Amino acid sequence: MKHLSDPVRATAKKIRRLEIQGARNVAIATIKAIETLAAQTEAPSKKHFVRELAKAKDTFFGSRPTEPLMRNALRLIINRVEKSEEKNVKKLAEIVSLASGQFLSDLDDSSKKIAEIGARRIRHNSVVLTHCHSSTVTNLLKRAKHEGKEFEVICTETRPVFQGQTTAEEMLGMGVKTSFIVDSAARFFMNNVDLVLVGADAITSEGNVINKIGTSTIALVAHEARTPFYVVSELLKFDPATVYGDYEKIEERSPGEIWKNPPKNLIVRNPAFDVTRRDFIHGIICEEGIISPHSITEVMHRKYPWVFE
Amino acid sequence: MKHLSDPVRATAKKIRRLEIQGARNVAIATIKAIETLAAQTEAPSKKHFVRELAKAKDTFFGSRPTEPLMRNALRLIINRVEKSEEKNVKKLAEIVSLASGQFLSDLDDSSKKIAEIGARRIRHNSVVLTHCHSSTVTNLLKRAKHEGKEFEVICTETRPVFQGQTTAEEMLGMGVKTSFIVDSAARFFMNNVDLVLVGADAITSEGNVINKIGTSTIALVAHEARTPFYVVSELLKFDPATVYGDYEKIEERSPGEIWKNPPKNLIVRNPAFDVTRRDFIHGIICEEGIISPHSITEVMHRKYPWVFE
Amino acid sequence: MKHLSDPVRATAKKIRRLEIQGARNVAIATIKAIETLAAQTEAPSKKHFVRELAKAKDTFFGSRPTEPLMRNALRLIINRVEKSEEKNVKKLAEIVSLASGQFLSDLDDSSKKIAEIGARRIRHNSVVLTHCHSSTVTNLLKRAKHEGKEFEVICTETRPVFQGQTTAEEMLGMGVKTSFIVDSAARFFMNNVDLVLVGADAITSEGNVINKIGTSTIALVAHEARTPFYVVSELLKFDPATVYGDYEKIEERSPGEIWKNPPKNLIVRNPAFDVTRRDFIHGIICEEGIISPHSITEVMHRKYPWVFE
Amino acid sequence: MKHLSDPVRATAKKIRRLEIQGARNVAIATIKAIETLAAQTEAPSKKHFVRELAKAKDTFFGSRPTEPLMRNALRLIINRVEKSEEKNVKKLAEIVSLASGQFLSDLDDSSKKIAEIGARRIRHNSVVLTHCHSSTVTNLLKRAKHEGKEFEVICTETRPVFQGQTTAEEMLGMGVKTSFIVDSAARFFMNNVDLVLVGADAITSEGNVINKIGTSTIALVAHEARTPFYVVSELLKFDPATVYGDYEKIEERSPGEIWKNPPKNLIVRNPAFDVTRRDFIHGIICEEGIISPHSITEVMHRKYPWVFE
Amino acid sequence: MKHLSDPVRATAKKIRRLEIQGARNVAIATIKAIETLAAQTEAPSKKHFVRELAKAKDTFFGSRPTEPLMRNALRLIINRVEKSEEKNVKKLAEIVSLASGQFLSDLDDSSKKIAEIGARRIRHNSVVLTHCHSSTVTNLLKRAKHEGKEFEVICTETRPVFQGQTTAEEMLGMGVKTSFIVDSAARFFMNNVDLVLVGADAITSEGNVINKIGTSTIALVAHEARTPFYVVSELLKFDPATVYGDYEKIEERSPGEIWKNPPKNLIVRNPAFDVTRRDFIHGIICEEGIISPHSITEVMHRKYPWVFE
Amino acid sequence: MKHLSDPVRATAKKIRRLEIQGARNVAIATIKAIETLAAQTEAPSKKHFVRELAKAKDTFFGSRPTEPLMRNALRLIINRVEKSEEKNVKKLAEIVSLASGQFLSDLDDSSKKIAEIGARRIRHNSVVLTHCHSSTVTNLLKRAKHEGKEFEVICTETRPVFQGQTTAEEMLGMGVKTSFIVDSAARFFMNNVDLVLVGADAITSEGNVINKIGTSTIALVAHEARTPFYVVSELLKFDPATVYGDYEKIEERSPGEIWKNPPKNLIVRNPAFDVTRRDFIHGIICEEGIISPHSITEVMHRKYPWVFE
Repeated sequence: MKHLSDPVRATAKKIRRLEIQGARNVAIATIKAIETLAAQTEAPSKKHFVRELAKAKDTFFGSRPTEPLMRNALRLIINRVEKSEEKNVKKLAEIVSLASGQFLSDLDDSSKKIAEIGARRIRHNSVVLTHCHSSTVTNLLKRAKHEGKEFEVICTETRPVFQGQTTAEEMLGMGVKTSFIVDSAARFFMNNVDLVLVGADAITSEGNVINKIGTSTIALVAHEARTPFYVVSELLKFDPATVYGDYEKIEERSPGEIWKNPPKNLIVRNPAFDVTRRDFIHGIICEEGIISPHSITEVMHRKYPWVFE
Repeated sequence: MKHLSDPVRATAKKIRRLEIQGARNVAIATIKAIETLAAQTEAPSKKHFVRELAKAKDTFFGSRPTEPLMRNALRLIINRVEKSEEKNVKKLAEIVSLASGQFLSDLDDSSKKIAEIGARRIRHNSVVLTHCHSSTVTNLLKRAKHEGKEFEVICTETRPVFQGQTTAEEMLGMGVKTSFIVDSAARFFMNNVDLVLVGADAITSEGNVINKIGTSTIALVAHEARTPFYVVSELLKFDPATVYGDYEKIEERSPGEIWKNPPKNLIVRNPAFDVTRRDFIHGIICEEGIISPHSITEVMHRKYPWVFE
Repeated sequence: MKHLSDPVRATAKKIRRLEIQGARNVAIATIKAIETLAAQTEAPSKKHFVRELAKAKDTFFGSRPTEPLMRNALRLIINRVEKSEEKNVKKLAEIVSLASGQFLSDLDDSSKKIAEIGARRIRHNSVVLTHCHSSTVTNLLKRAKHEGKEFEVICTETRPVFQGQTTAEEMLGMGVKTSFIVDSAARFFMNNVDLVLVGADAITSEGNVINKIGTSTIALVAHEARTPFYVVSELLKFDPATVYGDYEKIEERSPGEIWKNPPKNLIVRNPAFDVTRRDFIHGIICEEGIISPHSITEVMHRKYPWVFE
Repeated sequence: MKHLSDPVRATAKKIRRLEIQGARNVAIATIKAIETLAAQTEAPSKKHFVRELAKAKDTFFGSRPTEPLMRNALRLIINRVEKSEEKNVKKLAEIVSLASGQFLSDLDDSSKKIAEIGARRIRHNSVVLTHCHSSTVTNLLKRAKHEGKEFEVICTETRPVFQGQTTAEEMLGMGVKTSFIVDSAARFFMNNVDLVLVGADAITSEGNVINKIGTSTIALVAHEARTPFYVVSELLKFDPATVYGDYEKIEERSPGEIWKNPPKNLIVRNPAFDVTRRDFIHGIICEEGIISPHSITEVMHRKYPWVFE
Repeated sequence: MKHLSDPVRATAKKIRRLEIQGARNVAIATIKAIETLAAQTEAPSKKHFVRELAKAKDTFFGSRPTEPLMRNALRLIINRVEKSEEKNVKKLAEIVSLASGQFLSDLDDSSKKIAEIGARRIRHNSVVLTHCHSSTVTNLLKRAKHEGKEFEVICTETRPVFQGQTTAEEMLGMGVKTSFIVDSAARFFMNNVDLVLVGADAITSEGNVINKIGTSTIALVAHEARTPFYVVSELLKFDPATVYGDYEKIEERSPGEIWKNPPKNLIVRNPAFDVTRRDFIHGIICEEGIISPHSITEVMHRKYPWVFE
Repeated sequence: MKHLSDPVRATAKKIRRLEIQGARNVAIATIKAIETLAAQTEAPSKKHFVRELAKAKDTFFGSRPTEPLMRNALRLIINRVEKSEEKNVKKLAEIVSLASGQFLSDLDDSSKKIAEIGARRIRHNSVVLTHCHSSTVTNLLKRAKHEGKEFEVICTETRPVFQGQTTAEEMLGMGVKTSFIVDSAARFFMNNVDLVLVGADAITSEGNVINKIGTSTIALVAHEARTPFYVVSELLKFDPATVYGDYEKIEERSPGEIWKNPPKNLIVRNPAFDVTRRDFIHGIICEEGIISPHSITEVMHRKYPWVFE
């Protein structure tokens, strides 16, 4: 049975080592591994198959602290198998495949809808500030550009890993007027910004958003200047564990990202994310439209009730 | 007469090219150059001598946009010469030398007093956050350490030029427990900070403080968490031009500091400083004690009335 | 077929020319026109009839930028026809009539419930401030008065069209102690106000409220003084287009409303509405009770799911 | 028939005289009395029985102004009887007994879930401040302690009746490090607090929380210092009357609680509760998880729809 | 002696009837009347002359509640006479003339300095919002325009007397791009405003500013959007009576200004001014430079100590 | 020489044991002791006499941590002796007596002026809230009452020592309508309060005020409701040590004041004072008028320069 779980362990390892990054990429790789596991299973019964899946789930859950999209994908797939009245393992493997396909295609649909809805918020000649790199944000801006809107984007460099450079390059590639600043200059320029757009790594049951370190400061600075601040995210970034009291764990990454050869005794602190309070968020632009973050749990109960099971 | 102004032009050039940096270093180099000018002058009359000094003043004022300490030094020295009833150029040169000496020794006295006063604000086991590198701040912390106080310092790296590394190294050298973070993580740690201390590049007549980019954001973040925020600075960083309506000009430095080889068409914005509103500043720790920034202009009128002349 | 649409075009014209005004009046006139259209239709089939209705809908939607009540009425009526399994056009016309009747009677019920619920919030001897004229607000106050409560009303004049005069006259007519002030004096009196009540032109998916220009400033001023601020509105003022990213368009009216004969070159800006953020709104008093504006979209999904279709 | 209602009147009297106190105790006593009433009823028909129950309900509703938990218990039990198709009074009495039992067991389940969920929010070595005495809060802390977490609790004394002493004694009994302060010292210590936890007497449809006098000030003080403030409460503290516009009445208790022998003419004001606005509440820790107070009405519609009937 | 005081009584009457308006005009007319009084005096001794002046002072002080500029002019002139060692009435009349002349010429100097200082704050292409009509503000803008700066001005109409129309006409006359809005639209446009400039009717010892009704709301709205708000005023608008606890009395003008023929029983409230707290004021642009309002009393003690006598 | 210092040691002991309380009483007792010391001195020379005084000063400074009024009295008296050119000890003793007398008479004058100035701020029918007991506040209210003003006073009980009872009794004695509340009910009533008045134990160089525990919370609550908050205090409560960086030490009093017989292991924290930030203080009502707290240091330099020596 050991060889069966190889795709799972191999993928989980890559995730752990950050060889696979980005909520979406991690979710896709996980789904692929689960599909392979299902296709190759030799489980003699549903009970055994479900146990295999549960084990794979544990492996993936343990690979990275904050990956609600991946976790929700696993929740959906395993939920479908468990709830099925089917007993035949081959047929159950097909259910895995079906659920996986549906999750991915739903994700694509969400992405398109988000871009379509969000693009309506980009006004002609407006200045948009964004932090880090988020594909939901850049898709939204691409859509707005394709609709013929002219706008300017200010990108923060996003220390320590400079993901802002990727955002800036994508924007320039689209022909968008692009400015580039250090993170701590966001307040200097905020009075000229019309709209802040950021992605999300996770959304909590209280309506708070976990995203790249620095996001909450930009939200505060936008709030101070009465500049609207929107989170652009699929609803499945919602983390159901937060409902039940778990804190989103804030991963601390390698000190070397901040200072290559730090002096002896220096304590380098490198939290990857921070928490933006719902009060600073004008709305979450998601596949359900533009919603208030305060209602996120009820929206999830209506739209994706299975995440609570 | 040309060779006389050589020390002035040479020094001004070094200041312009950032070969001499730091408000204090710039002021000292300027004073030295003026002293040399005075020692070597061949001016036939007071009138000519005053004209030479005025020309030197213009050269230095033009070398860098925000250097109130240097400018105030020049103001004092020239003011003394102009007000003197002495006609003899040699005697006037001595007055230059005397005024220069007094300015420098006053500056030393201020520095000592500030460290002494400010150190009283460091409580045992407190956590101090500082941004960038400021010698008035590090002197204050040295004094507190020498007085036997135990405390912890959190240094922001201070993009784009990483002056926070210098601060961290000095702190470690003193045996102080030191943490190091990216600038945009300041809010993440702020709830555990007891005191924020920063330096100043200039103080305006309204009571606002111009300091390294990012300072105003840290002030806002400290304010949000009810953490006291103090500026540690000699009063002579006060810029009298702001009284008369001039904005402190915010220097924009080289894009290369932020992104070595930026993509084509990218607009890199690199403001060196920002403005922290008086409302976010608990007090200015200066040679006159701990004062409210709102009263700065009146303090200057009482203590250094000549800056207004 | 041309003559059939005459009632539609005639009514739409009146709406466009502001001959019919007020969300409620506009909705009623529109429903009447649609009923007439249905009664007179010569459409040979359901398909043709639905096309006629769709055309009428387009005409009405185009007549004024912000009229969610009217739009929701049209949505309901057409939705009923489209969903019906009936093929017979006469029978479908009856469905139009039925749906129209139900919409109007529901609106009346809502209005009564709102007055009943809201009147409970008027305490004896309290001072209520209101802006502009809103029949839902004045109904609520009438109800409170009929219940024997004594209270005082402060009306803002509401430039540029002075709708506050209508409110004041209605209040005086009911025997209520009434004060009258210019709009910019609201803050002067706010510390003596116990409750602010305003109507709504539209409610967005984020929970914000669009109402007469000046409303958002009064909300801010009430917030500053810890004075409760309530919006009194039927839920059907909710605009489902905002869910999908559309901004409520803020109509700019004629310059002549502000300055009859303005000097040459003057740019008169006359926005009719502004947006009050949900954070300033203590609650929306609606037919479902007193709700938090943050939950508006979920309330609509529960109560009027058809607006999202 | 008179003797039948004796348990009801006796219990209601004890509630009125504060011989039975605490939302939970009041609800339990009420349920017991209703069960006794049902067991002893001699009502000849369902109609008469329902009338008896309604009368009992009125008696209990009139015994204390703010007791939503007790009221919701009565609502549930009577609703079950009314909705039942059963006509036989004995059988209906069994339904009362069943509904009562379920309510109490649900309450126990809620309490356990709340403790379990909330305990996850207590971090090692954190400082928790609490006001008054709340058994949901102390249960939560007990659970955290049993899970092996070390933490410190600061109790306010809670004038005028010093319920904070009970909390302090319970905490010390569990071996928790406990500090004790006067109510007005909460701000003095707030910068060192990691988390504020309080109970609730009632929750309104707007998402506000009614709790012991002083709670709203602590919430404001926590907000000022960016300290998270959570309400720990069963959802059934929700008061459906607030949906329909009723203000929660704030009970004023005996002057003697504040000043035993006050001087003549002194007006002693002794409100027992105050209202904490939803904006100051990070989340409500309830049996449904940690939710935003803004969504409370929708959560109730989903989870306990019968409270609205 | 009666005829002597005629110019005083005549001028005071015009001031009372608002035939003379504007702080500056009122002060000038008062000074002229005092000069005439002095020129025509038949007082037999200094004592009598001083009594005449004191009587005139009382008459003028009683003519309008808030006119610190006029009052300070009277204070200066009478103070000079009283302090003089001169006994001869003719000579004392010359002192009146001298002091008057100096006051007026100082006022002119102040006005020029304010325009010069303030114009430095107008940046190229900036948008300035102003409320009501203030000649110190329009002088400042004229100066900026003459210096070749391009900028845009937004004028509020300023109900009830529409002084904003005068401002708009002056701006258009200078060739400045000018927008015109109702007062309650200021918040709608604030996010695009770079600078707010208003005048002052009086400045209090606490640093607050009394100005046309609506000013304090605009200050609040500017504060909310992080838009700098400056008061442009001569220091002699400082009202020394406020030092000694007097409230600036807020004049209520005729109801007819707001509603020509109001309905019976309507209470029209027409306060002419409101109070803007020092916390909303970035600086006072005055003849002493740009100062913090918090230091106003100390500035007065240094610059015009005689106002306190 | 020992017996000479007896009055000093005896008085200092009483101060230490709280047998003498209240800033004013402590200052008076100290002055009396110093006068006795001077009257009885046998010091053979000025040098010896100054040494005696210095020793007495040390004894008094050590008797209680926060007593700036007493300390400033000692500063004045000793300063006068030191500065005098007199050598004769008897004559110097007379100087002590003179300075003492002047200090006390100045204090009386200040008290009268404060009452006179502050009473002007009490409007007819206004509601004043006060915390703890302050004789400067009650004097002010007495004056207002004597001037015929009707007003209402709300007194907080002021745990742990219930000084609010003294205030209430004084108010009732004057025939003022008086309400009495627990400290944590201040926010409940704040929306109906027109003015908050409190005393001061010390004023710092930053403009902050140290006063009875709970004051800063009331200031915050007043700020939240836009209710003016004034400190009523003699300027000599200014503590010059704070200029030089010293924190005002916050005395912690006996646990028994809070809980007579606390359970074992309980940590009772009983800070006597807290710090109210200048931003919450509308003005300090002092003998110099109503001033902004931000300018306090400059006011002291102008009015009482000797406190800095």
